[in-house]
Amino acid sequence: MTGIAEKLASNQKQVAISEFFEKNKHFLGFDSLARSLITAVKEAVDNALDACEEARILPTIKVAIEKVDAKKDIIKLIVEDNGPGIPQKSIEKVFGQLLFGSRFHAIRQSRGQQGIGITGVVMYCQLTTGRTTHVRSKIASEPTAAVVDIGLDTRKNKATKSNQGREIWYNPDGSSKDHGTEVTAQMKAKYQKGRQSVWQYLRMTSIVNPHAEITFTDPDGEMHHWPRVTERLPTKVEAIKPHPHGIELGQLQRMASESTDSRMTVFLRMNFSGVSARASKELCVAAEIDEKTKPTKMNPDQIRALLESFQGERLINGKPVKLLNPPTNCLSPIEELLIKKGLSKTIDSRFIATLTRAPEVTQGNPYQVEVGLIFGGNMPADKPVEILRFANRVPLMYQQGGCLLTKAIESVDWRQYGLDQPGAKGVPKGPAAILVHLASTNVQFTSEAKEALADNGEVIEEARKAMLEMGRGLRKHLEKKKKMAKTKEKFELINDILPAIAKKSADILGKPVPDLAQSITKIMSAVISETETVWNKETKQTDVSITLFNYTTRVRAYTILATWPEKAGAAMVNNDTGGRKEATGVWAWKLDSLQPGEKTVLSYSLGGLEKGDWTETDIFFRGSQDVIGASKMDEKFLEEIRRQERALSEMNEPEQERDEPEAEEPIGEPSVAAPTGQTTLFGGEA
Amino acid sequence: MTGIAEKLASNQKQVAISEFFEKNKHFLGFDSLARSLITAVKEAVDNALDACEEARILPTIKVAIEKVDAKKDIIKLIVEDNGPGIPQKSIEKVFGQLLFGSRFHAIRQSRGQQGIGITGVVMYCQLTTGRTTHVRSKIASEPTAAVVDIGLDTRKNKATKSNQGREIWYNPDGSSKDHGTEVTAQMKAKYQKGRQSVWQYLRMTSIVNPHAEITFTDPDGEMHHWPRVTERLPTKVEAIKPHPHGIELGQLQRMASESTDSRMTVFLRMNFSGVSARASKELCVAAEIDEKTKPTKMNPDQIRALLESFQGERLINGKPVKLLNPPTNCLSPIEELLIKKGLSKTIDSRFIATLTRAPEVTQGNPYQVEVGLIFGGNMPADKPVEILRFANRVPLMYQQGGCLLTKAIESVDWRQYGLDQPGAKGVPKGPAAILVHLASTNVQFTSEAKEALADNGEVIEEARKAMLEMGRGLRKHLEKKKKMAKTKEKFELINDILPAIAKKSADILGKPVPDLAQSITKIMSAVISETETVWNKETKQTDVSITLFNYTTRVRAYTILATWPEKAGAAMVNNDTGGRKEATGVWAWKLDSLQPGEKTVLSYSLGGLEKGDWTETDIFFRGSQDVIGASKMDEKFLEEIRRQERALSEMNEPEQERDEPEAEEPIGEPSVAAPTGQTTLFGGEA
Repeated sequence: MTGIAEKLASNQKQVAISEFFEKNKHFLGFDSLARSLITAVKEAVDNALDACEEARILPTIKVAIEKVDAKKDIIKLIVEDNGPGIPQKSIEKVFGQLLFGSRFHAIRQSRGQQGIGITGVVMYCQLTTGRTTHVRSKIASEPTAAVVDIGLDTRKNKATKSNQGREIWYNPDGSSKDHGTEVTAQMKAKYQKGRQSVWQYLRMTSIVNPHAEITFTDPDGEMHHWPRVTERLPTKVEAIKPHPHGIELGQLQRMASESTDSRMTVFLRMNFSGVSARASKELCVAAEIDEKTKPTKMNPDQIRALLESFQGERLINGKPVKLLNPPTNCLSPIEELLIKKGLSKTIDSRFIATLTRAPEVTQGNPYQVEVGLIFGGNMPADKPVEILRFANRVPLMYQQGGCLLTKAIESVDWRQYGLDQPGAKGVPKGPAAILVHLASTNVQFTSEAKEALADNGEVIEEARKAMLEMGRGLRKHLEKKKKMAKTKEKFELINDILPAIAKKSADILGKPVPDLAQSITKIMSAVISETETVWNKETKQTDVSITLFNYTTRVRAYTILATWPEKAGAAMVNNDTGGRKEATGVWAWKLDSLQPGEKTVLSYSLGGLEKGDWTETDIFFRGSQDVIGASKMDEKFLEEIRRQERALSEMNEPEQERDEPEAEEPIGEPSVAAPTGQTTLFGGEA
Repeated sequence: MTGIAEKLASNQKQVAISEFFEKNKHFLGFDSLARSLITAVKEAVDNALDACEEARILPTIKVAIEKVDAKKDIIKLIVEDNGPGIPQKSIEKVFGQLLFGSRFHAIRQSRGQQGIGITGVVMYCQLTTGRTTHVRSKIASEPTAAVVDIGLDTRKNKATKSNQGREIWYNPDGSSKDHGTEVTAQMKAKYQKGRQSVWQYLRMTSIVNPHAEITFTDPDGEMHHWPRVTERLPTKVEAIKPHPHGIELGQLQRMASESTDSRMTVFLRMNFSGVSARASKELCVAAEIDEKTKPTKMNPDQIRALLESFQGERLINGKPVKLLNPPTNCLSPIEELLIKKGLSKTIDSRFIATLTRAPEVTQGNPYQVEVGLIFGGNMPADKPVEILRFANRVPLMYQQGGCLLTKAIESVDWRQYGLDQPGAKGVPKGPAAILVHLASTNVQFTSEAKEALADNGEVIEEARKAMLEMGRGLRKHLEKKKKMAKTKEKFELINDILPAIAKKSADILGKPVPDLAQSITKIMSAVISETETVWNKETKQTDVSITLFNYTTRVRAYTILATWPEKAGAAMVNNDTGGRKEATGVWAWKLDSLQPGEKTVLSYSLGGLEKGDWTETDIFFRGSQDVIGASKMDEKFLEEIRRQERALSEMNEPEQERDEPEAEEPIGEPSVAAPTGQTTLFGGEA
């Protein structure tokens, strides 16, 4: 027995992160030959899209795959982008060092976060083919591109470099390229087609990145092209500071110990989002910490007390300290219109509904759910619906069953929305595809391969709500269509047949044809609305007209409301009939006297849109009698829209409140970058 | 545009592995409060079991959970073992440094491999409670135990130490403890009961670690005890060298570049398993490398050629170079008997079948599948069967759906084995539990939390085969029971009623009762076997008797074969009836003349077993007429057993062949530890 403990201990040694991931390369998505190729494409394309977005460049991405040795499954992958490029001295770290990157500590929405992805590709190539990965990158401020072959010293997690140099990078047209990066990698992999394929990955990527132009040359030399469908770049995202609700004790301890702030109130205001000057003082009071204390001087009990104040476990005047929500300009949703566009570009269908929910916060992290449903077309009716999962605009193609987004879909009773779903659980069946996108500053994946989202009750519930809301829209749409079709049939019957009978009778009797307007009105006994939304080629606008027929015998009064894509940046023009804004995206007209037997037309145009952006206008009414072709306004729904608006403006302007100026003593340098351009107005919180 | 590339690059920095896992703690199994506790218990218990196994100590493990602050979900976990202990200077690295350990590079079966587990626990405790983890450890060679509080500097992946000291470690009885380790950790966690609980985890652990004594004190102070059911430690596993079939190019490059061997043949023989002297030469010939080449001098093309020789892509005399299988003494299966014992200890049932398959090799890694099925008892009949998944003796409790072992179960048509399975797919329903254990030198999990096994076609197929084989056994067992029951009924009827009728008739007629033996034989017209397997309290042996009744009118000749637990170490004693070994675990008796109307008894005892180890003996026969109560010997089955035996002996003695002595020049120091006690016999491979 003696000596065994020492013997066991003597065998222990430190393993490099690169050795760990080399041994566990399947954690990174390199498990089968087919998946390894998709993973490599994914990492390269994600990087390209992220870099373009950060540099505010409309991405043009070219992916090419060649079979080097089909028998030995050796494949060459080339991914080229027009991103900002990488400075020569950074290339080796970006491509040859695991856990090196810029996004790990930044709290904002981005595709890549860990600094593992592309280095994983380099490592996999080296492991399976013994070859380095060729990188060419040019930045705008230098005349030539840097070229280098990158490998990985896995024992040290350091890059190995060879064949380093500089060259002019020519475009195919002979001009020289201004900026961009090209990666050429050889790996053991298999190219295959179908549902889990490079083609499918790029197709899905193009749905959620409608601003990207993607070209793919497959091993047979065939070109696939997904054009850019919008020139609008995704909203620029700003990194935010951590929110007190998402902080854990160990993290707070570290922040305090690393702080250079002179006093607690400065520390709290400058290093956290959602903490006003007033809140910073209240947090100190609640935690029984003198606000002049230096953060580094807090003892463990004080740090614990401060965390309890953060979490509302310590009260002030009987209430938890009120914190503002974190700003949501760290998020960049795709927005409904663009999802619609992306979907219709790639999937043939008869009906599309999309929905972008307002941002929410879970454990201090802002997030936002978007959903889409497409229905009909050529999709098979007897199979489970296609599920399109995305996180921060990246398609998720594996581990569907274990993903939060799938669970949210499974939690909905889709039968009420016209889809088959045996036992009211599981993935529904029918000719449909369901899209779910989670945008978040902190996407929690189940593993490094980033293929499935880990469970989070709040996020599941939010995704479920989004789908219910979208489902209600679908149901309403279907019901309305049905009702309109019936009324139209009746109307046409009356309008066609009654006059024909009248004419025939009059002819036979030799009498004049009677005026049937009164009779028709009596038989119809309804107010009918007809809405047209059409693209006007000449004006490049979307023309909307709402026609109301009063087929009743009395004067009628209504408020008519119409939806329009205000959030997507549309402008309402040529609206001669006035009206007023009721809520974001909802316009209203008060019509006091619709005369019996008469029709009224409301017409306007929408500018700032492209063809296909807006093809259907929803009409609502307020009034005592039904309007066929319109829905009674659900005031709760309007209230919900207004609530979301308020929440949004509150979230994005957390600093808009007047602080007591802390002029009596100088404010220390903040440990984290100070917010700029901050305006303060009194009374933002009560 | 100018400057944006530089600006983006300037934000990039290196992240420590500890920062990475702190942010992604759910990768390590710390996702919910309930699971975090199970993960912590798992890591501590796994370490204890591994350490005991390596030090050849029968483990006694005490787990205690206390609620420190129920409102704030603060829990204290104490895990104590009687393992070899950890030397003072190693404690900080084992507990406070990620990716530090002894098992990462060793190719052999072990619970922990990465050096992440227990440090992850320390990190989680610090993050959620701000507290360090208290460690007390004593090694046999020192009089006192080392105590220290360990934290983690996540920015550097280094331990922080406080309150370091030494103390005498008293047992509850006042004696001082000889060796062991105790971990006391405080964390944010929730204790819960049910299917995913600490209790369930320990229960499952005790099933596959029948040599361990586990005590658990729950937060209510209630004690749960799983006693040790065998004194036999698991087979000692030896680390093996990598097998050429599991090598990737990058790895071979590294091995070559780090080699200190003087020539290729030495390099190949000393650093790989399965490579004989002959094979090492042939590999060089096939790869067109001079066998005198220094490994460090190989060029990339030669390394690639060598890999192709490894993989059988380069031929010699038209054939791939023959390599031996890797030895399988790196594996330690539980073995059928002990699985049975473990299962019956914790689950009440009426029938148990278990099966340990022979070791196999996938991509150069030896692995072995074991399965068990328990049926009946109190288990619910209308629910999916309970699935008990294990990898290297560690229970897997989460992500059942995404696990290879579940997929293997789902691939079997269980309906033919008496379980309900709608549509012949998915997890079957019925009053049963299915156990699957994968023992492997390289268990591929889907993530660091080690809860589900990643896909591998060969392993799935092997697990499936194991279940089919076990299923066949179950079906045979059920059929045999049914047949025996019928025969017995008939036999009893004839034996009871015929004499009664004869007696009555004789009484009435006043005649003597006739001898019915001939008639009974005629009516039965069968050879019947009855087998008894009973535990003999006094001799501590299992007594087996096989009785054959020849109820036919002719002399019969048979070979009778019986199964016995030879592999589990049983010894056949008091076998006066002779016979001979037919295969491992199968004994045979040749019976040439069974006289009509007579019975023959074969009896023997089995030593080296414990009560309950062996309760049923399977009987087979060779002969022209059926023996009721026995099965006709399936010669293919016997051949399969013999094949496995041969494979096993070949695998475990890969060096048993005569090499051409390489005496003409000195053999260089091997880069990896040289095998010891190696004997060489000519002709091991052909």
